[in-house]
Amino acid sequence: MSKSDHISMSVIRRLPRYYRFLSELYEQKIDRISSTKLAQIMNITASQVRQDLNCFGGFGHQGYGYSVSQLKDEIKNILGLNNDYKAILIGSGNLGKAVAMHMNFEKLGFELIACFDSNEEKVGTKLNNISVKHENELEEFCRQNRVDTAFLCIPRVCVENMLDKLYSLGIKNYWNFSHYDINARYSDAVVENVHLSDNLMTLCYRINNSNQTNI
Amino acid sequence: MSKSDHISMSVIRRLPRYYRFLSELYEQKIDRISSTKLAQIMNITASQVRQDLNCFGGFGHQGYGYSVSQLKDEIKNILGLNNDYKAILIGSGNLGKAVAMHMNFEKLGFELIACFDSNEEKVGTKLNNISVKHENELEEFCRQNRVDTAFLCIPRVCVENMLDKLYSLGIKNYWNFSHYDINARYSDAVVENVHLSDNLMTLCYRINNSNQTNI
Repeated sequence: MSKSDHISMSVIRRLPRYYRFLSELYEQKIDRISSTKLAQIMNITASQVRQDLNCFGGFGHQGYGYSVSQLKDEIKNILGLNNDYKAILIGSGNLGKAVAMHMNFEKLGFELIACFDSNEEKVGTKLNNISVKHENELEEFCRQNRVDTAFLCIPRVCVENMLDKLYSLGIKNYWNFSHYDINARYSDAVVENVHLSDNLMTLCYRINNSNQTNI
Repeated sequence: MSKSDHISMSVIRRLPRYYRFLSELYEQKIDRISSTKLAQIMNITASQVRQDLNCFGGFGHQGYGYSVSQLKDEIKNILGLNNDYKAILIGSGNLGKAVAMHMNFEKLGFELIACFDSNEEKVGTKLNNISVKHENELEEFCRQNRVDTAFLCIPRVCVENMLDKLYSLGIKNYWNFSHYDINARYSDAVVENVHLSDNLMTLCYRINNSNQTNI
């Protein structure tokens, strides 16, 4: 296959969706699939599928289509889902709790190894079998354990201080649920943002314009 | 200003971010801002700002820049944030609870008017002052109240049945946290998806390739 560094980020951002659909086909014991059929299931065009999957080279065969298991495994490798990156969760409020309880981290390349909160009342409670620790234990914990990434589920006003601490401890990868712009402070940080309110504002626009808009 | 139906969806998806930054500038009592300065704050290029904001016409003036309050209000109007769309939440588990407690709906164009759950133990509990009702009250509720949109915080396997029910009750706008593809079933539904696991897989990829990737 071609090296993943030749694949554009726009293709990469579509890969999780391919991976989900291919995993389902695999569970349904489907061996192979044409680009036309895959496109139909995924509600995109066949040429988009072919263009995207050509980035990996060698999986589609004229008259055969794609091997489901081979393509699924390849995308899994490219995404690096076997990596078992060690993650800590900052903030065990409603949002942090939902993230800790809702996500199947090990299937997504991560292991959640600790949760931290500044609220004394939360300390000692459990989220998915992980005890919530006090934020003042963070530094010691990061010195004793490998931590690859932090999931930030704290209010925006708290992010800057926390970010400075985490960054100084060598953590440069963030899953960020706040509206704080991490890259404006640390341009080399790797950040994926979840902006729920932006998403909801877009829904508002689309409801408002639902007779005019085609996506 | 130009009519919002001339604005592409890619511009629309950037509007919430402009709106957030302009709201902050407004709170800081800043009257006007140049495209260069706005671009700098937002970590994008000035030409992107000018190109995006030109869609609304007439706000930028040579040598003056943009009026912060005017542009903020204009974007608010285009997004339709004054609409007060009536929303119901389906599923009051960890994710639904986080959504109900975490979001400032009224600032985002919505009012959350009811929550529903199939779990008897959840029924009668409160989320943000709204009592959780049993799912079997849904039909009656939707007949008695205007409901513009449903926020779906239920597991994927439960979505199809619920969706069929909601759609038959005339609800065609969805904020969807599951991986169920609503548009594949109802192509005219207006859907904004939050795919947390796709987001996390992308983070995994980027950590894996953090020395190679530039976004």
